[in-house]
Amino acid sequence: MNLIQEIHSYLSSDIQAMNEIIVDSLSVEEELIKVISTHLSTTGGKRMRPILTVLSAKMLGYEGSQSIKLAAAVEFIHMATLLHDDVVDGSKMRRFLPTANVVWGSKASILVGDFLFSQSFKLIVSTKIIPALLALSNASAIIAEGEVSQLVKLEQKRIVGEEEYLKVINAKTAELFGTACEVGGIVAGREDLAPNLKNFGLCLGNIFQIADDALDYFSDSSKVGKNVGDDFFEGKITLPIILLTRKISDKENNRLRKMIEAQERSEADFNWIKLIMNEHEIQTDIKTYLDALRLNALNSLAEINVKNKPKEYLERLVDFAINRSY
Amino acid sequence: MNLIQEIHSYLSSDIQAMNEIIVDSLSVEEELIKVISTHLSTTGGKRMRPILTVLSAKMLGYEGSQSIKLAAAVEFIHMATLLHDDVVDGSKMRRFLPTANVVWGSKASILVGDFLFSQSFKLIVSTKIIPALLALSNASAIIAEGEVSQLVKLEQKRIVGEEEYLKVINAKTAELFGTACEVGGIVAGREDLAPNLKNFGLCLGNIFQIADDALDYFSDSSKVGKNVGDDFFEGKITLPIILLTRKISDKENNRLRKMIEAQERSEADFNWIKLIMNEHEIQTDIKTYLDALRLNALNSLAEINVKNKPKEYLERLVDFAINRSY
Repeated sequence: MNLIQEIHSYLSSDIQAMNEIIVDSLSVEEELIKVISTHLSTTGGKRMRPILTVLSAKMLGYEGSQSIKLAAAVEFIHMATLLHDDVVDGSKMRRFLPTANVVWGSKASILVGDFLFSQSFKLIVSTKIIPALLALSNASAIIAEGEVSQLVKLEQKRIVGEEEYLKVINAKTAELFGTACEVGGIVAGREDLAPNLKNFGLCLGNIFQIADDALDYFSDSSKVGKNVGDDFFEGKITLPIILLTRKISDKENNRLRKMIEAQERSEADFNWIKLIMNEHEIQTDIKTYLDALRLNALNSLAEINVKNKPKEYLERLVDFAINRSY
Repeated sequence: MNLIQEIHSYLSSDIQAMNEIIVDSLSVEEELIKVISTHLSTTGGKRMRPILTVLSAKMLGYEGSQSIKLAAAVEFIHMATLLHDDVVDGSKMRRFLPTANVVWGSKASILVGDFLFSQSFKLIVSTKIIPALLALSNASAIIAEGEVSQLVKLEQKRIVGEEEYLKVINAKTAELFGTACEVGGIVAGREDLAPNLKNFGLCLGNIFQIADDALDYFSDSSKVGKNVGDDFFEGKITLPIILLTRKISDKENNRLRKMIEAQERSEADFNWIKLIMNEHEIQTDIKTYLDALRLNALNSLAEINVKNKPKEYLERLVDFAINRSY
């Protein structure tokens, strides 16, 4: 049993309650909404973000049901983003299954994504907890701006720097992780600890995204359930490339730059990149990078003066996230 | 000066305040968001929905600034829907200008639409008025479901009945008109009048949409600023077709059905449709249909026991909407 399965088992009644809310929100007349959302739940996987909300609230002693509603809302935001992302990226496969846009078309993905986003909005409002509403509405705006930002950068066909990269992944991934933790604290009546929880979630989200970006170079399709090399073939610049540019010669950097500026990238290009990444031990550099984020995350948690099972799970999630990358 | 211009002039300070909120919400780092939203404001036009919120609140004596925020939020929901609609419909022209998806591509339209939707969410939450939050989050879910419904029906390539048609336009258009009016009442502290305002807005929204659908058959491009016949060429069934099917022979109905089931429809098909619509006086039937909605709308307003300028404008908007159709 891996950590996620263990947490699912520990939170089984909460997750069941959340799944009921999700099913309930999707019980609309239009069958296509249910079909696509169910497919997405299957391919979306771990319910990582709602777990964060429930664990954060539980760590602070909250036992009510509002955290479950917020957790479901967080999951809906995530699902909506996945649907729109896959359309924008033209992704064909996710967790061993074809993406919704491949099966039902982009139009359906766009509109069902909008529906899921509106359901999240409805659920959040139903809690009537103003600080949670403010946090989540703010997060959704940051996420949306981050998505636009990423698109603009991609279309510029240039190698962005570390700062620009971090800004994008902070917005498109870490923000929702951070807010998921934050609203867990808010619902538990501990707004004083919200900054710690937010920072913990931000770091964890960054770790997840960086690990994910690393997998695109250092794993194979059979392991991750999606096409490896997608980012590179799309011309999307992520941390492995950024770290690589610091270590290779001017001549090699020129070659890399031309690849990114080109209309398309070949398998041979990808193999060359993997070869020089291997030569320059980029995978180790990624691990070093993640270790810094790990410490930051754990420090934020350490400042919260409790010792219990939910906290232990939050801590262990950090290492779980890091271990995905190698 | 037409009625809309007159109302804009009457509400000039409110509209200016609303425009400032809109500009402020769009003052983000990512330039593309501002560029697309500004284009959309130019092509989106009349600010009809926010006007309804402000007039409804004013009619009931409200003079604060919360109605302005809600009005801006309503406009953002509308703008987000326009962007996604144009992608899904593949629309090329709106109010004499190319659509955003033509100029900046579908990907940008999808993501900037998401951004606008998140901004509306943020603005609504910032008012902290729970009943308004509930009304608008509910409306956004209904609108999104309506959009999916419309897509599903379109892909079925069949002639839907009046009831199915009304269900779709109620969700995709009338719901936001209704909620725009309703939250005007809520913000004025008159939740008792919210049902009247909601019904007024629903009727007005239906009138607008039906008039719009009629224009697609009974106007020309130079007048409406978009391609005439779009609905027919797309295979979208609207009221003129539905009313026509009741009057033509079985043989003609068969011919019509085959046209809708076909992959594409020709100019000759469209000319035939316009010809038999003319023969059977469908435009007059539309007017009769709209008159019933007109009475319903005005009755709801009449039950609100005030007599002032904002109410007069709301009443006059009904006839303005009807007169668009012929």
